[in-house]
Amino acid sequence: MTANTQNKPATADAMQALMAELFPICRSITGDGVRRSLSLLADVIPLQIHEVPSGTAVFDWTVPNEWNVNEAWVKDPTGQKIIDFGEHNLHLMSYSEPLRETMPLDALKPHLYSLPEQPDLIPYRTSYYARDWGFCLPHKQLELLPDGDYDVFIDSTLEPGGLSYGEYLIPGEIEKEVLVFSHVCHPSLANDNLSGLVVNSFLAQRLADADNYYTYRFVFAPGAIGSITWLAMNEDMLHRVHCGLVSVLLGGDNRFTYKKSRAGNAEIDTVVPFVLEENQQPHDVIDFEPYGYDERQFGSPGIALNVGRLTRAPNNEFPEYHSSADNLAFVSKESLAESLAALWRISQVLDANRTYNNLNPKCEPQLGRRGLYGSVGGEHIKSQEHAMLWLLNQSDGQNSILDIAKTSGLPFDTLAEAAGRLVDAELLATADNV
Amino acid sequence: MTANTQNKPATADAMQALMAELFPICRSITGDGVRRSLSLLADVIPLQIHEVPSGTAVFDWTVPNEWNVNEAWVKDPTGQKIIDFGEHNLHLMSYSEPLRETMPLDALKPHLYSLPEQPDLIPYRTSYYARDWGFCLPHKQLELLPDGDYDVFIDSTLEPGGLSYGEYLIPGEIEKEVLVFSHVCHPSLANDNLSGLVVNSFLAQRLADADNYYTYRFVFAPGAIGSITWLAMNEDMLHRVHCGLVSVLLGGDNRFTYKKSRAGNAEIDTVVPFVLEENQQPHDVIDFEPYGYDERQFGSPGIALNVGRLTRAPNNEFPEYHSSADNLAFVSKESLAESLAALWRISQVLDANRTYNNLNPKCEPQLGRRGLYGSVGGEHIKSQEHAMLWLLNQSDGQNSILDIAKTSGLPFDTLAEAAGRLVDAELLATADNV
Amino acid sequence: MTANTQNKPATADAMQALMAELFPICRSITGDGVRRSLSLLADVIPLQIHEVPSGTAVFDWTVPNEWNVNEAWVKDPTGQKIIDFGEHNLHLMSYSEPLRETMPLDALKPHLYSLPEQPDLIPYRTSYYARDWGFCLPHKQLELLPDGDYDVFIDSTLEPGGLSYGEYLIPGEIEKEVLVFSHVCHPSLANDNLSGLVVNSFLAQRLADADNYYTYRFVFAPGAIGSITWLAMNEDMLHRVHCGLVSVLLGGDNRFTYKKSRAGNAEIDTVVPFVLEENQQPHDVIDFEPYGYDERQFGSPGIALNVGRLTRAPNNEFPEYHSSADNLAFVSKESLAESLAALWRISQVLDANRTYNNLNPKCEPQLGRRGLYGSVGGEHIKSQEHAMLWLLNQSDGQNSILDIAKTSGLPFDTLAEAAGRLVDAELLATADNV
Repeated sequence: MTANTQNKPATADAMQALMAELFPICRSITGDGVRRSLSLLADVIPLQIHEVPSGTAVFDWTVPNEWNVNEAWVKDPTGQKIIDFGEHNLHLMSYSEPLRETMPLDALKPHLYSLPEQPDLIPYRTSYYARDWGFCLPHKQLELLPDGDYDVFIDSTLEPGGLSYGEYLIPGEIEKEVLVFSHVCHPSLANDNLSGLVVNSFLAQRLADADNYYTYRFVFAPGAIGSITWLAMNEDMLHRVHCGLVSVLLGGDNRFTYKKSRAGNAEIDTVVPFVLEENQQPHDVIDFEPYGYDERQFGSPGIALNVGRLTRAPNNEFPEYHSSADNLAFVSKESLAESLAALWRISQVLDANRTYNNLNPKCEPQLGRRGLYGSVGGEHIKSQEHAMLWLLNQSDGQNSILDIAKTSGLPFDTLAEAAGRLVDAELLATADNV
Repeated sequence: MTANTQNKPATADAMQALMAELFPICRSITGDGVRRSLSLLADVIPLQIHEVPSGTAVFDWTVPNEWNVNEAWVKDPTGQKIIDFGEHNLHLMSYSEPLRETMPLDALKPHLYSLPEQPDLIPYRTSYYARDWGFCLPHKQLELLPDGDYDVFIDSTLEPGGLSYGEYLIPGEIEKEVLVFSHVCHPSLANDNLSGLVVNSFLAQRLADADNYYTYRFVFAPGAIGSITWLAMNEDMLHRVHCGLVSVLLGGDNRFTYKKSRAGNAEIDTVVPFVLEENQQPHDVIDFEPYGYDERQFGSPGIALNVGRLTRAPNNEFPEYHSSADNLAFVSKESLAESLAALWRISQVLDANRTYNNLNPKCEPQLGRRGLYGSVGGEHIKSQEHAMLWLLNQSDGQNSILDIAKTSGLPFDTLAEAAGRLVDAELLATADNV
Repeated sequence: MTANTQNKPATADAMQALMAELFPICRSITGDGVRRSLSLLADVIPLQIHEVPSGTAVFDWTVPNEWNVNEAWVKDPTGQKIIDFGEHNLHLMSYSEPLRETMPLDALKPHLYSLPEQPDLIPYRTSYYARDWGFCLPHKQLELLPDGDYDVFIDSTLEPGGLSYGEYLIPGEIEKEVLVFSHVCHPSLANDNLSGLVVNSFLAQRLADADNYYTYRFVFAPGAIGSITWLAMNEDMLHRVHCGLVSVLLGGDNRFTYKKSRAGNAEIDTVVPFVLEENQQPHDVIDFEPYGYDERQFGSPGIALNVGRLTRAPNNEFPEYHSSADNLAFVSKESLAESLAALWRISQVLDANRTYNNLNPKCEPQLGRRGLYGSVGGEHIKSQEHAMLWLLNQSDGQNSILDIAKTSGLPFDTLAEAAGRLVDAELLATADNV
């Protein structure tokens, strides 16, 4: 890796700056806001942008019409503009259809959304697949609305267009891929999920400068319909996906939560908990469940990819979730940097976690004459020698270095180093079983 | 089900009344007492009575001669009748051969059986396969017998006849069967096993009025030789037995004990403990062992049916076991009703505990356009929606609803209801793997 | 077995006497000391001695030149002999090459080995595969050596010859073998491993007088190169090895440690812990690791024999290890006798731990008519009857007697006795699956 991709203070500043640029843009599952966001990520990595036309069938779904908004507001009986999309794009329910109408408060109210228990916050609401419209506002404000006629104006378009997603492939030594997915659809929500977009972009930048064993594929797409679309368009290459991560909501200072893949025993399900454990900070490892983010699609029974999820504050588990409180103040550059460091270490452990075959499996090979073992017998054994004995013994094409680390109690890096020496001595060879 | 088969007070009264009618009859492994008992059960359900002739080879065994008794007594040296089969049929050892003889006390004593530690009770003893005779009496009485000559009279017959058993088949949606077995051989013992005969008859009556997925087969036969005979006569249909229960000793107020099938991991081994757990009353779940009731035969290695055992006070584990204290006072109509309710729930969970295939397994289906999912996004998920996501995700033909209940933590009935809706929407189909 | 092979006091005395005879001999991985030692064992059992010529290729290794020593010493600047192989053969590093040289202390020091933390002891050091020389001495003495010129003399030979090992085969009822291996290479170290040589010889003597199910093979060979050589010479018969033990370091009063085979779930891995548990003395059972004694070779992935290791004080785990403190005072005849008793019981449990097939697997056989079951029913079951029911139920060719003992909670010997009766009654037959 080159100096400029190191995980240094400048990177944290750059991530924070990119967050700030992305924040005000109105994103949804389609539309120009998504395109603008992807083009900002393309300043960091050479992202390839794909457009899938409205109406395309993707498994059980259909790519919807594209939604864009120029302007949207509600005026009260005195003519004062009291809710304005121009001030905060959470004010308008995503995919609200065009409307110009005057109506009494009673008719307006079913279209107003608020959070009674968090009366100062604007909620985040969507209606992608049922034609509808709505405004979101603080509950405090909602309660004070006087009776009378309200002017409602939504200058939006819902027309055939496309669903946009970004993709970046970093070829590795082998064709098998590690997939890193993050959703781009949320509007002005900082942790959910500008943080994921930004951290994953910088991870990709750093991996692009490294010599990787696996090929890495980064996908930035809208939630649900985006992963469904990507899976439908790429069904014939899914056999190449060795494992993956939905890597999202990584900007808060909450502890890491790793959610296992559907299988629950894939390599990624061992590697991520190992790295979190290594960090010696509190963290959670939870079982797969079919509710959450795009791991729902990757873990559906007919897809069943080994894709886990790494977050710092998963859905429903932080009070700022899906509200105007999930803003730039909620995330910190320290947390972004910490998340990037964890993902980098995950990629490095994944890369080094080979399974080998012992090429001299009948009895121990004579390490001494290869200079790999001390010549004076009778003394205690050294750590590298011990690691070599473990690797030779367990390398029957079944046990990875992490497996051997667990069985032996020896450090992963000690084993990885010893494995390198044994490969050089032609005593081990990578097992072709990824 | 129709109103008259509901588990209501009238049913409990009817069970108790049938117990009282059955109690005085002298049953054994063959004979007219068994026939009379089966004909009383046939008043509740249309039982089919089978007769297997003495001498028929059944695996390693032979159906024995039939045993019937007219009269049996012992008179003391003063000519007083001191032990009389007419007073309690436990007084005569089952299968005692005919005898008319006068003998001194020393010659009589080896044929007298008592319980020194329960000196007021008459024990229950049998000698089915070695020609012998004997009388059973309270130890208190035995100790006071004076020396002198005793008159012993046994007017019994041991002649070619038949072994009788009752069978009732309730066809279900599929041919696969649930077997419910209870032993009919014990004479005047109320819990062991009139309680099983009566509760199983009323369970059968109630199932006959329901629409069942499985076919149910009820067998009422003598212990050991009866199940061996039934298995030998039905060997070519045993592949149809999906699972079963030896359902006996269900009248006392003792806690339920479920004894697992030999395999230990059959569906019945999950369903019964789940129902007992659901009842939130103390209960035991124990591993299979080859001692006990007819599960010994069902669980022999060459038969190996998935048959567990449900009792409330298994053999050797209640002081009244195999003695005159196991009488009508030992059982209660409340316990009989509770046992019937537990068995009914077991049958209902078994029936609903399907394994499905997701018919749209690639990514989630679009539940919203089928009216199965709320249209406004961003809010918390509802219980039926959550249940549907779990069912769709886990339905790969491997996981039953009970499995999914365990994995998800969602209630069985919530999942069963959601499964019904998904079947109606043609998103799930029952996996053909029972 | 005959009276003279019983495990009686005379045996303990004989073992101790043999230890004393063997102790002073200078052993190494080759040479006349090994031959003399094997010939002393041949007084106990009819050992067959094999010689493998120097230069023979054995897997990745080559049998080295043979090493013998006549004399070796160091004289200080005053001409006084301060280190003398004649006094203790640990003083000379094993495989030291011939040398006659005068040198200053600075040149000598790199060739002197001591134990700074155990300053009174002479360490044990070797240099089998790198030509070198060295002397071992107490650290106390090393620290006091004055400057000046030292006379160094090593009258050794390093010439083509042979590697010697002893083997003794005791044919059993079946051809499958139990292998008992111990290393003969260490010089004057009593626990490591004269104790193993002596205990294994007496175990072999006792087994030779018994009727054994398995064939037993005892191998006495140098560590590492010896087991590698034996494996290379016998590769085409390794399929006959059912299981085995590296049975070494058995003379101290330390607790037994059983180290499992590489597989970890072989029969030997159940039998040895069972016997240690039965002894009701503290003991350890540890997992396989590829460091230790010759189990390293037996457990290499291309050999993978089910060979565990039994010791009382494994390498590195007692302070006297590989030093002059591992002398005759460190071992006791009580410990030797205890070790022999444990090994004998292990052989007897292994021998009796058959897996059977029930020849009458459909329902229970009628034990009563074979005189194997009481004729009066209704009473509690007896221990032998219970054992027979368990054996008949579990004997499907999958469960050994030890497995059934664990499942049933019945004693091993009760089950073994009942199995004998069922075999005699032609109801069980040994499963041919060793």
